[in-house]
Amino acid sequence: MTDLTAALAEVDRCFPDSLARVTELLRFPSIGTDPAHHGDCRKAALWLAGSLSQMGLKAGLRETSGQPLVVGRYRPPGRTRCPHVLFYGHYDVQPADPLDLWTSAPFAPQIRKGKSGRQSIFARGASDDKGQLMTFLEASRCWLKLHGSLPFQLTVMIEGDEEGDATHLDRFLKRHAREFAADVAFICDTGMWNRTTPAINTRLRGCIGEEVTVRGPRIDLHSGYFGGPAQNPIKVLSRILAAIHDGRGRITIPGFYEGVRPIPPAVRRAWRGLAFPEKAFLAEVGLSVPAGEKGYSVLEQIWARPTAEVNGIFGGYRGPGSKTVLPSEATAKLTFRLVEGQDPKKIRRAFRNFVRARLPVDCTARFTDAGGDSAGFVVAEDTPWVRAASRALEDEFGRAPVLAGAGYSIPVVESFKTHLGIDSLLVGFAQPDDAEHSPNEKYDLESLRRGTRAWTRIIAELS
Amino acid sequence: MTDLTAALAEVDRCFPDSLARVTELLRFPSIGTDPAHHGDCRKAALWLAGSLSQMGLKAGLRETSGQPLVVGRYRPPGRTRCPHVLFYGHYDVQPADPLDLWTSAPFAPQIRKGKSGRQSIFARGASDDKGQLMTFLEASRCWLKLHGSLPFQLTVMIEGDEEGDATHLDRFLKRHAREFAADVAFICDTGMWNRTTPAINTRLRGCIGEEVTVRGPRIDLHSGYFGGPAQNPIKVLSRILAAIHDGRGRITIPGFYEGVRPIPPAVRRAWRGLAFPEKAFLAEVGLSVPAGEKGYSVLEQIWARPTAEVNGIFGGYRGPGSKTVLPSEATAKLTFRLVEGQDPKKIRRAFRNFVRARLPVDCTARFTDAGGDSAGFVVAEDTPWVRAASRALEDEFGRAPVLAGAGYSIPVVESFKTHLGIDSLLVGFAQPDDAEHSPNEKYDLESLRRGTRAWTRIIAELS
Repeated sequence: MTDLTAALAEVDRCFPDSLARVTELLRFPSIGTDPAHHGDCRKAALWLAGSLSQMGLKAGLRETSGQPLVVGRYRPPGRTRCPHVLFYGHYDVQPADPLDLWTSAPFAPQIRKGKSGRQSIFARGASDDKGQLMTFLEASRCWLKLHGSLPFQLTVMIEGDEEGDATHLDRFLKRHAREFAADVAFICDTGMWNRTTPAINTRLRGCIGEEVTVRGPRIDLHSGYFGGPAQNPIKVLSRILAAIHDGRGRITIPGFYEGVRPIPPAVRRAWRGLAFPEKAFLAEVGLSVPAGEKGYSVLEQIWARPTAEVNGIFGGYRGPGSKTVLPSEATAKLTFRLVEGQDPKKIRRAFRNFVRARLPVDCTARFTDAGGDSAGFVVAEDTPWVRAASRALEDEFGRAPVLAGAGYSIPVVESFKTHLGIDSLLVGFAQPDDAEHSPNEKYDLESLRRGTRAWTRIIAELS
Repeated sequence: MTDLTAALAEVDRCFPDSLARVTELLRFPSIGTDPAHHGDCRKAALWLAGSLSQMGLKAGLRETSGQPLVVGRYRPPGRTRCPHVLFYGHYDVQPADPLDLWTSAPFAPQIRKGKSGRQSIFARGASDDKGQLMTFLEASRCWLKLHGSLPFQLTVMIEGDEEGDATHLDRFLKRHAREFAADVAFICDTGMWNRTTPAINTRLRGCIGEEVTVRGPRIDLHSGYFGGPAQNPIKVLSRILAAIHDGRGRITIPGFYEGVRPIPPAVRRAWRGLAFPEKAFLAEVGLSVPAGEKGYSVLEQIWARPTAEVNGIFGGYRGPGSKTVLPSEATAKLTFRLVEGQDPKKIRRAFRNFVRARLPVDCTARFTDAGGDSAGFVVAEDTPWVRAASRALEDEFGRAPVLAGAGYSIPVVESFKTHLGIDSLLVGFAQPDDAEHSPNEKYDLESLRRGTRAWTRIIAELS
């Protein structure tokens, strides 16, 4: 029996224990953006540090300007020159609301068959990122247990601000760059191409978050006394939001597309060859027609085109019944997904100027930086890490991985490049119906098992 | 000493008791649109019925499809033919939010000097309508106490759904029209022209309330996975709201202005003669320029032009921090202020069609009738009631009352006309800075005292 065969058998044998550990981790309501849950974040971090120690790593917490960072260190005994892998994941999760749409409570993990007929574990964070990060940790745990050592030096870094303000970790990495020097970062926070085909992500969109509050009258007004002559901040805000896109779905903010390169024809052809099931992708969430920029396929819109999205809006009376009030202010929360070439700081400025230019007399706007400032990113594909992962994934799934893009943002990829000078290998096992950021988030038990096996194969490739 | 002189002296003498009774009434948090406060509405109604009994009326509660109606009856002993006056007020009040902007708690009435330097009583409902309705009741109480009888038959009717759904009282009046036959309705729910000049209101705008929820995706989505191709209901709703007005502030809903007559040149001239202090009116609430329909003065916009206002909006993430979610729905609450000639039912239909015509594929809209359906109204000016009130107000204030319009709605005026066939006499003593529907609502002690004296003079005029 080779090292690999034995390790895979051990992964399968230990699967119930792995699942039990994932379940424990999912019980922490570690919502990093909500101050009420900061205690839970620390508890989740301590649990992870304990788990890393138990595996044989030297682990503990490091304080940052945000939530604590879990750091675990491993150096293979006796080896002088071997590669140094930095594994990254995040223990913070999205807020769970709206709670009434959850079938089981978001922080009481439940294993049941989902709509697809597959067994899944349902909980906030199941897929994003607790279940995913555990695939690597469980693979490493099994390998260490069986073979006594890993074929590389390992630093595990699990943060608590991924869903919130990426600048906490960015600042930490900038300050401690030398201490965290490594050859490559492994990240497990992405998805498979489909149920049977793995993927390595080489493109990520960046993201910036903005909150804007438009103020008009000094106080809320009675619409009977003032309806007509008084500025209504909801109307003003609506007009501004409505002006962000033109009739073809292009963003009208001046300078927004500065630096955005057209998608190379070869890349467009390759993506078309993937025969992405647009109809089924949209139908899954109750939609039928792509609503974005005209002239781009769904994949192109998500992988290679920037967006402006309104994530939340509120103003005036929101209680039961009606209230004939003209509110004094209205607020929108927005995020911009960015692609390589766009400067996050410039986009933020351009948006603020766009709003200011549309404010009528007697209205003001207050802006809040709601986190982000991560740029879009394209990762090098021709590296030993991508080649090793490609072979391992093909062995596990019987199909070569798709070199895919992703529409979301993993700001840490940019931080690793900037401060540590290293590329990231993005391998993940999430499924399109995992409902990350939505009620009834889940992770398939098959994703957990195959993911752990795939990382085991990657470890073997690096031996 | 004439009956009047004696009565005015008695009003002044009893003022501390009157104020104490107003304070008691203001302690009830009788928010009619909030089911959590329906018990408080009934308590306020019972308190009023008790107060009317104490005055010498035969009083009790009548059930409606909404909040209970307070009814008090008085018939002058020995008189066979005398006019029958129906006095109307409302004990329900607007919701008190945002609570943090109140200087003293909204239902713990506090007497203090306001910014104007006048002594006022601060509480939700102080002006709208508890303080106001008490001016008539206190005048009647004093007259009855002093002279033993009123010079008219009196029915007092105080409802609890004025700020909510006017159809409750409308239905009740329709069913019991014969029982509530009267010659005229007196209503005290309007304001003075300014601090020194009284007013009789002869024009009211109507009002309809609508709530619209735009739905897109079946579930909330991650903006990283779906940002671009997924419909965003906040964007769709913003575009619809932004399209309601054109660049000149005119409402673009087809058929909206059907039946609206131009303001007669003589009326425009009379209103211009009032020299309404537009700048000061707007400056009071932090504004400087009228934001409404171009080509109309502030007074014309409020008294004679219809509006479409957004009173509240909500959708997506509204908690602390940010959440990169594409929400599945977004909701707006709107009210339309209507003028004479507009059919409320047609306007509601026209708005719904306007929204539906703007829904992109994959989006639906759900509409909720949020109350109203009251038409705009012009009351006859050449009646014995208006003449009697004009004389009385001129005697009290030393200035002839302005025959004014009002931008708000008193739907009961329409119900009285339709079901009882009677006109309404609208006399009130609210001041422009009373902050009805806003935090720190107040009623000036001077409004309470002079209002009670003015009604006393009107009673004398009818002797």
